[in-house]
Amino acid sequence: MSSLRTLYASDGSRPEFKTNMNVDFVINYKVPSDAQAEAEAGFTQLIEVLTKAGLASEVRNGVDNNSVLVFVKVASDQYLKSKIYKERVQDWLYGVRIKAPEKDVNTFFEKEPITDAERLRLVYLLLTLPKNDGGAGITPKTGQWKYVESVFPLHNHDFNRQWIKQWSSKYVLKEEDIDQIRDKFGERIAFYFAFLQSYFSFLLFPAAFGFGAWLILGQYSVFYAMVNSLWSVIFFEYWKKKEVDLAVQWGVRGVSRIQHPRPHYKWEHEAADPVTGEPVKVYSKRKRLQTQLLQLPFALICTLLLGALYVFCFSIEIFIGEIYNGPFKAYLTFLPTIILTACTPTLSTILGNLAERLTDAENYETHDAHEAALIQKIFVVNFITSYIPLFLSAFVYMPFGNLLVPYLDIWRATAEKISASEKVSTQGFQINPDRLKKQIIYFTVTAQVVNFALETLTPYLKRKVFKKVKSVQTEMAHKNGKSEVTQQDVPEEAAFLERVRNEAELDIYDVAVDYREMVVQFGYLSLFSAIWPLTPVSFLINNWVELRGDAMKIAVSSQRPIPWRADSIGPWLSALGFLSWFGSIISAAIVFLFSNGPEGPGGEPWNISAWGLLLSILGAEHLYLAVQFAVRHVLNQLDSPGLQKERAERFAMRRHTLEETLGEDITQKPLPDVPTGEKITREGLEEEARQASLKGRGTPEEAFWQRQQGMDETITVGRNLIGRMVAANKTAKA
Amino acid sequence: MSSLRTLYASDGSRPEFKTNMNVDFVINYKVPSDAQAEAEAGFTQLIEVLTKAGLASEVRNGVDNNSVLVFVKVASDQYLKSKIYKERVQDWLYGVRIKAPEKDVNTFFEKEPITDAERLRLVYLLLTLPKNDGGAGITPKTGQWKYVESVFPLHNHDFNRQWIKQWSSKYVLKEEDIDQIRDKFGERIAFYFAFLQSYFSFLLFPAAFGFGAWLILGQYSVFYAMVNSLWSVIFFEYWKKKEVDLAVQWGVRGVSRIQHPRPHYKWEHEAADPVTGEPVKVYSKRKRLQTQLLQLPFALICTLLLGALYVFCFSIEIFIGEIYNGPFKAYLTFLPTIILTACTPTLSTILGNLAERLTDAENYETHDAHEAALIQKIFVVNFITSYIPLFLSAFVYMPFGNLLVPYLDIWRATAEKISASEKVSTQGFQINPDRLKKQIIYFTVTAQVVNFALETLTPYLKRKVFKKVKSVQTEMAHKNGKSEVTQQDVPEEAAFLERVRNEAELDIYDVAVDYREMVVQFGYLSLFSAIWPLTPVSFLINNWVELRGDAMKIAVSSQRPIPWRADSIGPWLSALGFLSWFGSIISAAIVFLFSNGPEGPGGEPWNISAWGLLLSILGAEHLYLAVQFAVRHVLNQLDSPGLQKERAERFAMRRHTLEETLGEDITQKPLPDVPTGEKITREGLEEEARQASLKGRGTPEEAFWQRQQGMDETITVGRNLIGRMVAANKTAKA
Repeated sequence: MSSLRTLYASDGSRPEFKTNMNVDFVINYKVPSDAQAEAEAGFTQLIEVLTKAGLASEVRNGVDNNSVLVFVKVASDQYLKSKIYKERVQDWLYGVRIKAPEKDVNTFFEKEPITDAERLRLVYLLLTLPKNDGGAGITPKTGQWKYVESVFPLHNHDFNRQWIKQWSSKYVLKEEDIDQIRDKFGERIAFYFAFLQSYFSFLLFPAAFGFGAWLILGQYSVFYAMVNSLWSVIFFEYWKKKEVDLAVQWGVRGVSRIQHPRPHYKWEHEAADPVTGEPVKVYSKRKRLQTQLLQLPFALICTLLLGALYVFCFSIEIFIGEIYNGPFKAYLTFLPTIILTACTPTLSTILGNLAERLTDAENYETHDAHEAALIQKIFVVNFITSYIPLFLSAFVYMPFGNLLVPYLDIWRATAEKISASEKVSTQGFQINPDRLKKQIIYFTVTAQVVNFALETLTPYLKRKVFKKVKSVQTEMAHKNGKSEVTQQDVPEEAAFLERVRNEAELDIYDVAVDYREMVVQFGYLSLFSAIWPLTPVSFLINNWVELRGDAMKIAVSSQRPIPWRADSIGPWLSALGFLSWFGSIISAAIVFLFSNGPEGPGGEPWNISAWGLLLSILGAEHLYLAVQFAVRHVLNQLDSPGLQKERAERFAMRRHTLEETLGEDITQKPLPDVPTGEKITREGLEEEARQASLKGRGTPEEAFWQRQQGMDETITVGRNLIGRMVAANKTAKA
Repeated sequence: MSSLRTLYASDGSRPEFKTNMNVDFVINYKVPSDAQAEAEAGFTQLIEVLTKAGLASEVRNGVDNNSVLVFVKVASDQYLKSKIYKERVQDWLYGVRIKAPEKDVNTFFEKEPITDAERLRLVYLLLTLPKNDGGAGITPKTGQWKYVESVFPLHNHDFNRQWIKQWSSKYVLKEEDIDQIRDKFGERIAFYFAFLQSYFSFLLFPAAFGFGAWLILGQYSVFYAMVNSLWSVIFFEYWKKKEVDLAVQWGVRGVSRIQHPRPHYKWEHEAADPVTGEPVKVYSKRKRLQTQLLQLPFALICTLLLGALYVFCFSIEIFIGEIYNGPFKAYLTFLPTIILTACTPTLSTILGNLAERLTDAENYETHDAHEAALIQKIFVVNFITSYIPLFLSAFVYMPFGNLLVPYLDIWRATAEKISASEKVSTQGFQINPDRLKKQIIYFTVTAQVVNFALETLTPYLKRKVFKKVKSVQTEMAHKNGKSEVTQQDVPEEAAFLERVRNEAELDIYDVAVDYREMVVQFGYLSLFSAIWPLTPVSFLINNWVELRGDAMKIAVSSQRPIPWRADSIGPWLSALGFLSWFGSIISAAIVFLFSNGPEGPGGEPWNISAWGLLLSILGAEHLYLAVQFAVRHVLNQLDSPGLQKERAERFAMRRHTLEETLGEDITQKPLPDVPTGEKITREGLEEEARQASLKGRGTPEEAFWQRQQGMDETITVGRNLIGRMVAANKTAKA
């Protein structure tokens, strides 16, 4: 059992990586040893619903004698096509695609072939949509389907190998590289890579500028903070446009309007939609709003709990690091780190669970709404854990350290009690002006590297250890004379099945985790990089690796993700906007406090001028808003390939439809026949008078419009009137 | 020549008000007495282009021997219908109407008849669109058409009389009343009335609350300011939703996307559109952006010029009112008012012209963009003239009066020089704490009344005087023996023509003026009403009258406006948003400065605590933003009739199109035929083996999917596997 990683290093000629056996999805069905009957019944149901949903299935031995693998593909190509055609028509109706799909299905699919991502998405929907929407209604791990451990598509290892190879030998990624990801893994993941790539390219400027600032301007430079803030505005506004552009180019603009219902949604009652008359599942909006209000206490609890933890560790740290001078100092220094390392993950998990339960209670109808709400809450937790240590240093320790240190005596008392000694020796407290810089370097360099290592190495090591344990177990079982009854793969499939079993045990890739990492990083840049202008340089390097590392993570150490569509980076956009705006405030405060050296502008560190600080904040914030307004205005003037494409499509569609709807007969209709009239002649007038006396003038309206018949008459009469007027005016003047 | 007003007072049975003679538009063609040949040639051209554009025309004597009136109607009903049909199809293509127009034109127009507004708008477009867009290309007062004085539709006096009668006898206006306006005067004007009506209804709350606050809380109440700010957020967010709602109900949502080209647009060169290949008129965006940058110096000039004027008058006013004690004091008090009254209109006109020229230089392609840019600039001027006196009082006079008064000695010196007396007697300066209140009362009561009077009475008086002068002139002409050669109306038309001549002399109604008035009023409420909580009461009363007065203005003293479409109140929305936000800042500052009496929180008026002030502003602003966020979130949850209607239409359209496009055959396509398979029997297996040996297993993929044939086989195999696994696990445990 060699790991995937070593396989990738080989020339990749092994046959089990060449084919997916036309399998679309694999269902890992757990076999509990204590509920055979239930498991068998469930399995029977599973195969039945699959068949009813138009899916063909095969079953094979699963992982470690504890599961069976059900292989699924769409039973007929024609059926898949009809489904995809229907989806594309729906896209058109929702305005996602501008041109209506052609009526001839065959030429249509020739022109716009089905991508891998599209096919897999459709099959996944067939598997998971409720039965009355035409799906099989499978909900892994819940209710009826509690033995369905996971549902996943198979990797395309040929593609993956090439992908990793390409990216690791390339300095700059191009649009085509992202497009490739889109075809294989769907727009949702492609958006992450597109974002990361844009962010990386944009970092080039602040990295260069930051390096210059580090050489020339030094720390806490007003100029650096302003340029940095301006940059973050431009980047944010640029990305907002770029995002729309990509969505248009990928043909998914507005796709977020097409919502998939959330299986866990609980409705109060079914009612007829007042509009469409269709039955809809109603949940009181007021109730949801009330639940949403719980976000405020949630945010408060997060702040208090995590805040208390950090303040606690912070005070210990300062006491031990800068006051305490007794025995074991070298070891005790690690105490706060140990406490933090022990408590933060626990607390984060608890709060994360709380956030999930809160979001569940908010009971959203659609998947997207649920996820956005969850991300919002997790962001609060992340915001606090990521930035609070720096806030404490910048706004508590540095300005008020001298005032607060006496309160740390409590630790001395505690230490004396514990050691039972009479007096713990201390040293005089001196504010450490480098503390902030050290901290920011830790967060922007050390933590990033550690994090990256954890992210890529942990799953690898975990798998390695896991395999080792298993092989030992198997050996022991063999020694005990117990044979593996069920491991009887057909030789030509054995390698393929082995590979599938490996993939079944991989983690599920969650793009939100990667987004979070990048957004938090952007926050450090926007909020604190004035402290250490080399921050963007570090991020630039980190993100070059990150881009490739994330690709590796998807290709090697995760199951192939479900290729969802998306038309933006979703809720992360507002998180970025918030951090960019908040950055203008925090940067201004930091620069104001420390730009005259760590002593602050008032000479004494805690003797800062409150109104000056407030004025800087107020000024910086409003300057920020004004600049944002201007940048937005300028960027809105610019055209972009995506918008051009959209315009072209709309134009073609309009011309086509106009021609079709109106036809030649209406658009080219000749002008109405207005008689150009005859000359006013004596005979003509007499004829007119005769006609009038015969028929009468008709209604006053008719009479009004008959006085001058045709254009020429009107012109003649008008010229006469003008002539007489001019003459009359001349005599009047004379 | 009796004025329209007296005519309206009569029972309206006079025949000239009963019919418009089927006239759609009237062109008032000026006849200059010194250029007969040119005028005649122009007139001939006019009639020719009209005829070519499919319009019939009649000519009659004009106003005062100085013009001829050209009456215009669409030559054929069929032609008008084809044009309107085409427009409706365009609406559909642009997504303004959701349902495609029916292909049968006749039943279509039966179902959706042509409204007055639609007809007039279409005819106006025929008159003014460039020739290659199918219009006559008439541009009043410019270039080739410099003698075309005006182009206007005729009032429907029957409707007008009823309208005024209804509204003046009704306390509350309903949706139907606004809908009526929409049918007659178009959505653009209907939006103004809808806005005013919503604003009026919303004022009920702050009026009641303000009255209570005036009784109980008094001036400068924090609570009042907060409630007021909250109210303005709710009103603003409500209107944003309401606006969309109305646009949907009126079928104009997104109509601002369909833009009419601006005739005065100057392009640099024609180029092929990169997308559509059509020739487009290009003007460099960078150039426009550069011109737009001139807005900054423009705003600066406005502030400096108007600011200087106000500071000048302000200082004189304080000197004379509160320091000076010499001769003529009673008269001199009026000096600043006289200077202001003399200078403000001149300055406003100059700045207004500057704004217009600036906007012209920005050279927008479309009418809407031009107007929005102009309104933005005019708003700057209005903002300064309306609020600067109060700013000066609140933030200069009150807090710093004592510090600045010594500088007013310059006026004493001047006065001594002028009067050549040795010493001008003065009195000790004392800040007048009531000054702010008096000012706000002036702006919110006196000025509103005066303004209303000017608005409604001036045109009436102007017309009266004008007529008087003319009748005297005519009399004199008669006395001098000069007869009016051209006044020879046919008796049955005479009264009608007289009426049209009257309408030709009326002003053109500009809805922007009325919007401006209301937006400025909203500003007083949002920025300064904490000074005098009765402000909303005054506005409530004023707006009840205003609603009716504006109706009167349109019906009686203006030409019938061109019924343009619109899908919102346009640029005024952002002005409202700005004022609402700015109000949170200014109110906070005012309340902080004066809530402890006019002396301010520091005891001495000029001894205010800067950090307290800044903190209140910062707090108030961010509280405002947070509340806005929350209100927006809550309002977004709510459904509305307009959005329901849109949803219903979309749903119907989707169902219809889906049925049409997919047909029964695809949607109802039966599931693909998955063989349910036979029992695994000895015979079956043998048969299978035989088949395989005959044909071979085919590709590995085929072989993979052939192992279990059909559902039942898969189920059987799966159950076997499960059974064996459970057994194996049990023995392993044992």
